[in-house]
Amino acid sequence: MTASADRPLGVALIGYAFMGRAHSQAWRTVEAVFDDVPPIARSVLVGRDQEAVTAAAEQLGWQEAATDWREVIIRDDVDIVDICTPGFLHADIAIAALEAGKHVLCEKPLANDTAEAERMVAAAEAARSRGQVAALGHTYRRVAALRHARSLIEQGRLGRILQVRASYLQDWLVDPEAPMSWRLRKETAGSGALGDIGSHAIDQVQFLTGLDVTAVRGRLATLVPTRPGDDGPEQVTVDDAAWATLELDGGAIASIEASRMANGRKNELRIEVFGTEGALAFDLEDLNELWFLDGTVPVTEQGFTRVLVTEPEHAYLQAWWPQGHVLGWENSFTHQARDLLVAISGGPAFTPDFADGLALQRVLDAIIVSDAADGATVTL
Amino acid sequence: MTASADRPLGVALIGYAFMGRAHSQAWRTVEAVFDDVPPIARSVLVGRDQEAVTAAAEQLGWQEAATDWREVIIRDDVDIVDICTPGFLHADIAIAALEAGKHVLCEKPLANDTAEAERMVAAAEAARSRGQVAALGHTYRRVAALRHARSLIEQGRLGRILQVRASYLQDWLVDPEAPMSWRLRKETAGSGALGDIGSHAIDQVQFLTGLDVTAVRGRLATLVPTRPGDDGPEQVTVDDAAWATLELDGGAIASIEASRMANGRKNELRIEVFGTEGALAFDLEDLNELWFLDGTVPVTEQGFTRVLVTEPEHAYLQAWWPQGHVLGWENSFTHQARDLLVAISGGPAFTPDFADGLALQRVLDAIIVSDAADGATVTL
Amino acid sequence: MTASADRPLGVALIGYAFMGRAHSQAWRTVEAVFDDVPPIARSVLVGRDQEAVTAAAEQLGWQEAATDWREVIIRDDVDIVDICTPGFLHADIAIAALEAGKHVLCEKPLANDTAEAERMVAAAEAARSRGQVAALGHTYRRVAALRHARSLIEQGRLGRILQVRASYLQDWLVDPEAPMSWRLRKETAGSGALGDIGSHAIDQVQFLTGLDVTAVRGRLATLVPTRPGDDGPEQVTVDDAAWATLELDGGAIASIEASRMANGRKNELRIEVFGTEGALAFDLEDLNELWFLDGTVPVTEQGFTRVLVTEPEHAYLQAWWPQGHVLGWENSFTHQARDLLVAISGGPAFTPDFADGLALQRVLDAIIVSDAADGATVTL
Amino acid sequence: MTASADRPLGVALIGYAFMGRAHSQAWRTVEAVFDDVPPIARSVLVGRDQEAVTAAAEQLGWQEAATDWREVIIRDDVDIVDICTPGFLHADIAIAALEAGKHVLCEKPLANDTAEAERMVAAAEAARSRGQVAALGHTYRRVAALRHARSLIEQGRLGRILQVRASYLQDWLVDPEAPMSWRLRKETAGSGALGDIGSHAIDQVQFLTGLDVTAVRGRLATLVPTRPGDDGPEQVTVDDAAWATLELDGGAIASIEASRMANGRKNELRIEVFGTEGALAFDLEDLNELWFLDGTVPVTEQGFTRVLVTEPEHAYLQAWWPQGHVLGWENSFTHQARDLLVAISGGPAFTPDFADGLALQRVLDAIIVSDAADGATVTL
Repeated sequence: MTASADRPLGVALIGYAFMGRAHSQAWRTVEAVFDDVPPIARSVLVGRDQEAVTAAAEQLGWQEAATDWREVIIRDDVDIVDICTPGFLHADIAIAALEAGKHVLCEKPLANDTAEAERMVAAAEAARSRGQVAALGHTYRRVAALRHARSLIEQGRLGRILQVRASYLQDWLVDPEAPMSWRLRKETAGSGALGDIGSHAIDQVQFLTGLDVTAVRGRLATLVPTRPGDDGPEQVTVDDAAWATLELDGGAIASIEASRMANGRKNELRIEVFGTEGALAFDLEDLNELWFLDGTVPVTEQGFTRVLVTEPEHAYLQAWWPQGHVLGWENSFTHQARDLLVAISGGPAFTPDFADGLALQRVLDAIIVSDAADGATVTL
Repeated sequence: MTASADRPLGVALIGYAFMGRAHSQAWRTVEAVFDDVPPIARSVLVGRDQEAVTAAAEQLGWQEAATDWREVIIRDDVDIVDICTPGFLHADIAIAALEAGKHVLCEKPLANDTAEAERMVAAAEAARSRGQVAALGHTYRRVAALRHARSLIEQGRLGRILQVRASYLQDWLVDPEAPMSWRLRKETAGSGALGDIGSHAIDQVQFLTGLDVTAVRGRLATLVPTRPGDDGPEQVTVDDAAWATLELDGGAIASIEASRMANGRKNELRIEVFGTEGALAFDLEDLNELWFLDGTVPVTEQGFTRVLVTEPEHAYLQAWWPQGHVLGWENSFTHQARDLLVAISGGPAFTPDFADGLALQRVLDAIIVSDAADGATVTL
Repeated sequence: MTASADRPLGVALIGYAFMGRAHSQAWRTVEAVFDDVPPIARSVLVGRDQEAVTAAAEQLGWQEAATDWREVIIRDDVDIVDICTPGFLHADIAIAALEAGKHVLCEKPLANDTAEAERMVAAAEAARSRGQVAALGHTYRRVAALRHARSLIEQGRLGRILQVRASYLQDWLVDPEAPMSWRLRKETAGSGALGDIGSHAIDQVQFLTGLDVTAVRGRLATLVPTRPGDDGPEQVTVDDAAWATLELDGGAIASIEASRMANGRKNELRIEVFGTEGALAFDLEDLNELWFLDGTVPVTEQGFTRVLVTEPEHAYLQAWWPQGHVLGWENSFTHQARDLLVAISGGPAFTPDFADGLALQRVLDAIIVSDAADGATVTL
Repeated sequence: MTASADRPLGVALIGYAFMGRAHSQAWRTVEAVFDDVPPIARSVLVGRDQEAVTAAAEQLGWQEAATDWREVIIRDDVDIVDICTPGFLHADIAIAALEAGKHVLCEKPLANDTAEAERMVAAAEAARSRGQVAALGHTYRRVAALRHARSLIEQGRLGRILQVRASYLQDWLVDPEAPMSWRLRKETAGSGALGDIGSHAIDQVQFLTGLDVTAVRGRLATLVPTRPGDDGPEQVTVDDAAWATLELDGGAIASIEASRMANGRKNELRIEVFGTEGALAFDLEDLNELWFLDGTVPVTEQGFTRVLVTEPEHAYLQAWWPQGHVLGWENSFTHQARDLLVAISGGPAFTPDFADGLALQRVLDAIIVSDAADGATVTL
């Protein structure tokens, strides 16, 4: 199922909204930037509406457009299925694609519920034994500054991790008169701020520290409980803000906060990791910067150092521009495509995989269960 | 009991460690800076050790030294009793001084437990009817930038408050080999990070928003559970980090975090207040700056504005230096002395008073109770 | 000479080093992001080495490779010639391409000397009458935050401009033992820090304020005068730092500083514009942010506002990602390609044009003349 | 000439406007904070108006008030004469006080012209042989962060200094309709932005690097040339902005910029020092912070470190509050008083002295001469 020697790896992208556009940009760019990837073909873009998907394929640079993902995922010229649909379709498409022998890249969240996620993990495990890759798109793991953060922690530069703070704040719902929408109904959206953006914060905690969550206490709130609907005020049924404390393997504690009501915070994923020997801080709104405290230098010289993570020696950066020429949000998707292609070519395994996604889903579920149990600890 | 027309108000300061030195600096400075205060005399400094207190009185600029606070607080030439002792002495001294007809300024925390605090409030209420002031020293309320923050919120510039974040992070216990001390034993210290610094964060939430806490969920942790003691490893019996979510009157939620293990954070009281119309952010390590988001200007011009709170039009600043000449941590104590003297002279009442201190104590207690109840909501 | 109705505009890119790669990324991306551009074909990449240019064309996504730019620029299927060669080739290629009826995009600097630049302007003027576009690639004009800055100044939000500060600091030559190279010899490099990066600072001064430079005083320095060469120490014959003051039309003064020796500054183009009603500040290392002071709001609320220039209402941003998803250095090249295509399609004229490049060259020349004349004022 | 064994050193302060108030605060505080200083008496405050100076002496904590400085400086109980008058009186008072055998602290600028300054230096040299101290009040040398900067450079942590940038920006004259005043007339003010604040920038360059200025090129400008006077528009005869480049001993170059028209910059003395091994940055609006680049650590970890200069190990800080409790602008005056008292008591000599002030005056003069000579280099 991998590309034969004489043709490039065929990619099928399903979905062309926000995430589909970002993935398209990555697939269009990856070969031009990285020289350690196998050749690919942007074979087919899949959407429901024939006319719209045809136009999108032309604009975004795909060879063909199609409307039936079931037909596409079994095509011989398709090697990689990249799933950028709404979450409720992830399980069906991913499992079918894996069963059809394809490599799969699935946008986060892995699934809308744990049962689905478990089926996906099973399918991924079976596929792995056949040499297929099942990758989960937690793209922020490929921000160079966060990759560097992970590396510093792995090297022991922070000592023993004591405490983590991770918050993801946005403000697009801060207007209480913003109308009701499908994103604010549990049956369509699955969850609110916790699942949408809190999940990134939690994924980073585990990614950066390398520590599993062993127990949680959580709280959810709907700060604007009703919004204007088509027929008058309507109940918002997902959280618009969430808080949790996570116990990590070994005793460290992480605090999590997610909100869509934090006026003035546009896309602020802020992470601080504190250890016995050092600390790190990061803000997604300044994503080329990592702040590193080396607690072992003389106290008169200690402080957080603003490292501009654009040196050729930093992960991914050799392939881009000279030092000081900053990257943007989108470039991490190119890194993700690159790492996936390298994994498919027999390089290092791609993480996070579906099992990581399931583990994350279980943490999110535990937070919801804890909140429903008046904040009681839920063990994982 | 107030100063007669022909002599200044006599101040007695009890305690001359860190807080006593800061208060001394304020009493020494207040008349030189503010011209709307009655004259004072720095009459007497009280401490347990005759020789040490005599030397301290000389260095810090007090007319006399004394060792028995009971004698001092009944002296006719003493009008104000300023209590900077360890917390366990607050109640006895404050109640006796109030009963002796004196004005009292008591450093935070008000008391070591709620029962004591309630007795203090009763004494303060009785004294108020006699025209005495009983003031609580939550000095950060007098940082000019926070006073300005309060003013903006009072004016409605943030609209309805939705969400608050307040963290107080220090790092002086980050070394796991730092030895055991009285501050780490519950019987001597009362509490750990929560009471020591988390209390400032909670006080600010109530001060800035003007909203009462109605319910809490809390979590405490001792991240380094044993430390080297005189006879081998000893159990730490106070929290070294704490987290809570507070429900505020009207439905807003505040998150609180306090830690003494946040490597590289020296004295970082960071506060963010988010409302429907605007937002504010503050960091005690840059205490002349207030970051204000006006969410009503065109979106292309929105963002947090760094206001350097040093204009003559800002609270307290007219009395100091020209614009741009920044103040330090200590100056807030001078503001506190000024506001107390103005209140004693019949000006606006001093807040926080003992009742505010009791209310804060009840929030702290509730957090501890919640933690002990596995995170369950505790209503106030 | 414009694309016929039935085929896309053919682009020929000459050069594929750093700038060529950045332009390739832009040509590959522009149609996918912007829907107001005519279709293009990435027809041919030109380089001197057949094998290398063929590999580059394949990697960077060009249909063909070629080695003789003279043949390429007269091809019927080529409509746009994009010049990313070393500066000494700009004039020959640009003039020939314009004479061949092609639109031209020329990377900065326009030329290596003023005589060349004048010939290029003449060619561009002749071509303009034939409907051709001759564009100069001062890409930073297309950073969204700087475009927003220009817009605020045009709207009069800063009042009358009094003073500008623009510095471009890098550090890649800070090691005194870094070896001699062609970039450090006047005969090959033309100039040093002034021409290479100071030119960006000066271009921004004129772009942002809309004011012409009327006179200059300048100073150049070679802070490390000799470096290791192949045959022992060799004289560095270009400046590695430069300073100037520029008088602007109407009396404002701009200070300029450029350096390759500013340890720790990786790519720091920092610009401050001060007017009677407001001010602006920008730093290329945080290129999504514009700091705006509105001097007309009450003084208690004044300060620099950090505007994250990622709103759909900001220039270019509607076409990219949702608010808060920051762009990188490379995206400005896509904006440049878009503006060029729009200009070719009859939209607003592209600036800067060759005449702007000549005007800039004259400012650079005047600084060099001033330095040689011991700092005397040189009038333009 | 020094205090006899049985009485404190008597201080006479001449002037009680802005600087006099700041010095009063220092004299009131120094003994309480530092325990290595001899006892002092705040003996007498001198001003021209009897009533006003009496009120000021009472408010600011001086034992007596007087109106004739000539009588005061010869009093036996006066040991130190602190001169905070307008600059044109500095020479007369300082020389007379030195001749009367007193120690002198003179606020900057040393004098209004070089001839005066030379006479003062001569008087100081004669006095030094008698054991008297003649100190110049360039207070910013006593900001702890700048003292730490100096120490790092002295230790060689920056390697060889290549380049310095120092700007002092204020905005209190940005309104073109602000009326004419004595500060804007050359005959009363001596000079404008250059002498007033540019002098601080230049002093820091020499203080931090330890390098003398050997030659300058300068430019002055009056950006608002006429202002409303009592009888219609009046000519401003001092500079309101100034720029210079300074050659330093050994070849480094410093750029200087001073302005009172930089809208939004309240008191921004910003300094950057770049060396072959490291760099430093400082901003007076955040005066507890020093940004230090150690260019010798691995490039992936390099960047400017925000050092909060509040550790007991930092200069002066041991005497103040615990780490993280930031100081304000005024505290540097207390440091200055302490260093003066220590010098008088036989400790390390106080710098800057009058000779340093004369050297600085010569640099300022050279800049003015250079500007008048159309920017020509003036050698020192």
